[in-house]
Amino acid sequence: MTANRRFLLARRPHGDPVPQDFSLAEAPVPTPQPGGFVVRNHFASLDPAQRGWMDDAPSYMPPIPLGDPVRATTVGVVHASDNPDFAPGDWVMGLNGLEDYSQVAPGGFTSKIDISGVDSPSRFLSAMGAVGLTAYFGLLDIGQPKPGETLLVSGAAGAVGSAVGQIGKIMGCRTIGIAGGADKCRRLVADYGFDVAIDYKDAGGNAKPVDTLSAEIAEAAPDGADIVFENVGGAVLDAELMNLAMRARIILCGLISEYNSPEKLGARNLWQVLVKRATMTGFLIADHVPRFGEGGAQMAQWMAQGKIRVDEDIQQGLENAYPAFMRLFSGANTGKLVLQIA
Amino acid sequence: MTANRRFLLARRPHGDPVPQDFSLAEAPVPTPQPGGFVVRNHFASLDPAQRGWMDDAPSYMPPIPLGDPVRATTVGVVHASDNPDFAPGDWVMGLNGLEDYSQVAPGGFTSKIDISGVDSPSRFLSAMGAVGLTAYFGLLDIGQPKPGETLLVSGAAGAVGSAVGQIGKIMGCRTIGIAGGADKCRRLVADYGFDVAIDYKDAGGNAKPVDTLSAEIAEAAPDGADIVFENVGGAVLDAELMNLAMRARIILCGLISEYNSPEKLGARNLWQVLVKRATMTGFLIADHVPRFGEGGAQMAQWMAQGKIRVDEDIQQGLENAYPAFMRLFSGANTGKLVLQIA
Repeated sequence: MTANRRFLLARRPHGDPVPQDFSLAEAPVPTPQPGGFVVRNHFASLDPAQRGWMDDAPSYMPPIPLGDPVRATTVGVVHASDNPDFAPGDWVMGLNGLEDYSQVAPGGFTSKIDISGVDSPSRFLSAMGAVGLTAYFGLLDIGQPKPGETLLVSGAAGAVGSAVGQIGKIMGCRTIGIAGGADKCRRLVADYGFDVAIDYKDAGGNAKPVDTLSAEIAEAAPDGADIVFENVGGAVLDAELMNLAMRARIILCGLISEYNSPEKLGARNLWQVLVKRATMTGFLIADHVPRFGEGGAQMAQWMAQGKIRVDEDIQQGLENAYPAFMRLFSGANTGKLVLQIA
Repeated sequence: MTANRRFLLARRPHGDPVPQDFSLAEAPVPTPQPGGFVVRNHFASLDPAQRGWMDDAPSYMPPIPLGDPVRATTVGVVHASDNPDFAPGDWVMGLNGLEDYSQVAPGGFTSKIDISGVDSPSRFLSAMGAVGLTAYFGLLDIGQPKPGETLLVSGAAGAVGSAVGQIGKIMGCRTIGIAGGADKCRRLVADYGFDVAIDYKDAGGNAKPVDTLSAEIAEAAPDGADIVFENVGGAVLDAELMNLAMRARIILCGLISEYNSPEKLGARNLWQVLVKRATMTGFLIADHVPRFGEGGAQMAQWMAQGKIRVDEDIQQGLENAYPAFMRLFSGANTGKLVLQIA
């Protein structure tokens, strides 16, 4: 390959991203900076957080500069190196971009990975990566699940949500998953072992009103939810808030229903947090990177024991980056969304 | 007195309570049930929580039954007793109603108080009661204030908020209070020692937009708020959420701006809880009743040392219960609102 294809942020999306917000450009394959190296990206993680990084808003990371490739966690192979710790052929994982080749400056967020024990390097973007470990640390550290407790998960058919449900079962919880559509709900029970699946959409495919959804949760969890793992926000969160058990723990992991919405709906039932003396805590996996080894080892063990399955939705080709990314928001995506670049 | 005047809930308010939601009735002065006693109420606490109890909605207490007196914490004197632990003339405090005389069943939530060291029995409804101790336990237990931290208080001129600010100063925090109107803001600094006062209203008396309020908070707290003591909700909460320090603690104590609003605005900036890995915890003083002795003693000591002032807004007469109660919502009230009945 003689050129480096790069999927660039051309302008800041307003609401749902459109194709014109991006451009696919070609540049020369970079050569290593002094002390740095260049990675040939094989797999890139596509995540809702990337939508946030496209906005010019205060967040936990700076916005993606216009004209830069869309920031992404990638797994790849060292292509050329001026760093004695990274030799050509080494597998690495790091915060790079949606592009064939990424320049890694000295001290960049990229580290070596050992792919010898895994069926695909993409596992480091799913079960043993940010997704699986978001489920692992979010549920265990903040949720503090105890046997017999009720765990309510939104976005339950997604990569994080399905792992949360399965870890919850391992911890002895009763698990209730919320997802959109009959097929996803069937898979919640059949594939991920949820005790109950609740469809937040009606037969016509429209989101149910808060009261309807709240009543369905109440039927499934008559004593309320001890733990809520929140990936969605909006009306789904409002329905969950009406069904908290006393001193419920809410893990605020994502608010995907609001990321593309310039007019956020807002949470109207926060008063239930007060009534139930609940705690809502924001969770970002970035804080837990030093414990990735510990969490990854446990996830790998559970996968080997057949206790957890983490599905991957692998889309092909940098040229398909836009439609692949949009699968996150259309409801088409199930399992960890990954773009295969090489 | 030969009759027991009672301020009854005649129907459930929709939005702002109107006079027709209540009625003032007369009944015979009750005689004690076997094992119970009857209290002559002297002072009754008027609190935003009472508005919530008027709704037929799930809460931490059952709704006030229609035709019953409006539930209230009162301080009064035992009038007649069939309980050997309570003698006529004993001062007591308990969860009774807006009425001249309350029947206390055996095991009811009423206990004796020692008024010998206080300037007025109403102190047990303010500094040494639920108000002062909401500030005390909410700020200290959930907020965990440390010297040098920034404490942001909404409803800061109110009874709870003004005590929170003063306790925060004792703990070495920098205190920023939000209140409505120039006069209240002047008192935040002059009377309650806040370092900065922010007016959430503009010169015309209208609530400022979230962006404006958020920018003013940012100017006062450039590094963000480590602790937010929330009494208000709505746009004020949204502006505060845009100004959280990393790992901020939000004490969700009240959402008074939403209590009378059938169409709740909702919190639109919850994503900042995620971005800042903040924690929002619901607080109800009812959980801390076993520690009232400890908290009351500390508050009494601080008052005696001149470190804390807790103002009372004492309105007169059961016949004025409606206009007195509405002072909570009109912005007229400053200090702990109390209705003097006897």
